[in-house]
Amino acid sequence: MNETGRTREMAAGGSNFIIENEVFQLYIAHACINILKMIFVAYYTVFKRFANMTFSTKEDYEGFAATMEKDDVKKKLAECDPEVERVRSCHRNDLENIPAFLVVGLLYALTNPGVDAVSLHFRVFTLCRIIHTVSYLLPLPQPSRFLGFSVGTLSMVSMAIQTLLMGKL
Amino acid sequence: MNETGRTREMAAGGSNFIIENEVFQLYIAHACINILKMIFVAYYTVFKRFANMTFSTKEDYEGFAATMEKDDVKKKLAECDPEVERVRSCHRNDLENIPAFLVVGLLYALTNPGVDAVSLHFRVFTLCRIIHTVSYLLPLPQPSRFLGFSVGTLSMVSMAIQTLLMGKL
Amino acid sequence: MNETGRTREMAAGGSNFIIENEVFQLYIAHACINILKMIFVAYYTVFKRFANMTFSTKEDYEGFAATMEKDDVKKKLAECDPEVERVRSCHRNDLENIPAFLVVGLLYALTNPGVDAVSLHFRVFTLCRIIHTVSYLLPLPQPSRFLGFSVGTLSMVSMAIQTLLMGKL
Repeated sequence: MNETGRTREMAAGGSNFIIENEVFQLYIAHACINILKMIFVAYYTVFKRFANMTFSTKEDYEGFAATMEKDDVKKKLAECDPEVERVRSCHRNDLENIPAFLVVGLLYALTNPGVDAVSLHFRVFTLCRIIHTVSYLLPLPQPSRFLGFSVGTLSMVSMAIQTLLMGKL
Repeated sequence: MNETGRTREMAAGGSNFIIENEVFQLYIAHACINILKMIFVAYYTVFKRFANMTFSTKEDYEGFAATMEKDDVKKKLAECDPEVERVRSCHRNDLENIPAFLVVGLLYALTNPGVDAVSLHFRVFTLCRIIHTVSYLLPLPQPSRFLGFSVGTLSMVSMAIQTLLMGKL
Repeated sequence: MNETGRTREMAAGGSNFIIENEVFQLYIAHACINILKMIFVAYYTVFKRFANMTFSTKEDYEGFAATMEKDDVKKKLAECDPEVERVRSCHRNDLENIPAFLVVGLLYALTNPGVDAVSLHFRVFTLCRIIHTVSYLLPLPQPSRFLGFSVGTLSMVSMAIQTLLMGKL
């Protein structure tokens, strides 16, 4: 494709040159995997709630556990189910890390640090989040979850500092 | 505008060609509506806290409820107000969904899937989040909140899988 | 650089014209500072957990406090440490604000509102988040934390409404 053709395509489609860029293909793949992993944890919470018949509100019990006695509902609403809370804690840790990665990963990719550097940072982060989730949900003995969390954030810190140096306050 | 003029504009403004793109206009509108809806829930939490005089820290009671007796403050800090907790749970569900949508929606739009497909996914997601919020805050009987949550996430899963296919690990 | 050279660079690197744009340099700097601030709060939670030997799961006590007696572990798991909860509440407020800012700030910058307007909105938001964090962690008397939160969200509301007007549902 000649230069003018490429320019026309960029002006028309707005993004083909982005989609064809290898660094962006890496970003897209890792962003989607992390988002799908996070949605899996959300669904897993719902699964655990139905498996243990433990819900968060009165209308949930009325809608999904209509035969449960009122006293049992009151008791369940006052308590916390440790299995459900474990999945929710895992999910909250995702919320503390994945949305930040989705932005800092994109900005880091935009600074043109080279495919190898991007690939390394993204793979470390994604692998760490998977280790964190598996360690939390099974659970595995510590420090597996701690390493998943801390190495993943270090990958983010590295990307954020390198990107910050390209910025201007 | 001729090709060179458009290129110069892109190089100068950096984004007019993005703003003029119909798919991006859809993205911008849905992104902002979801963000504003989420900020509304944040303000509604503050409103409920002041309406019920239920705060989360000692300095809040000192600053906003100076006349309240110390024993009442201690009691309030140890308990949870169910109305405030309801708004916070609604907000947390937003946090689990909206930031992920903001990124996956943008990436999906970048894969050029056509205006109709983008419009369908975005409208389903936004409508579902509004249904979820209304169902949680009023509250409406289940499964209205459950449908709002699950159909909204399915729209995200569909976008994430389609986008993932354009990526490269 | 002539027009063709710049176009070739855009097609090749995909983003230098973005990185050289003053508004994007502002965005990159503020985005990274807010992300690094949020990661600091995450690490501070870990620090507080180790300082107070208060963890969230059984395997944490087995891995990091192996000498603690079983009854003490059970008691600690049933309770909440107010210092740890304070950092977690601060972190949660970050989650409610910073990921939304990261997206709405970028979209607002894309609408070409001028460097001064972007700079004002970003500086107000970042300063407010720092005030919020300091006010929460020290803590400072109210309304310092309340002002940090509410003025920061107002900056976001202003950006979101201005950006929404460029969108199309």
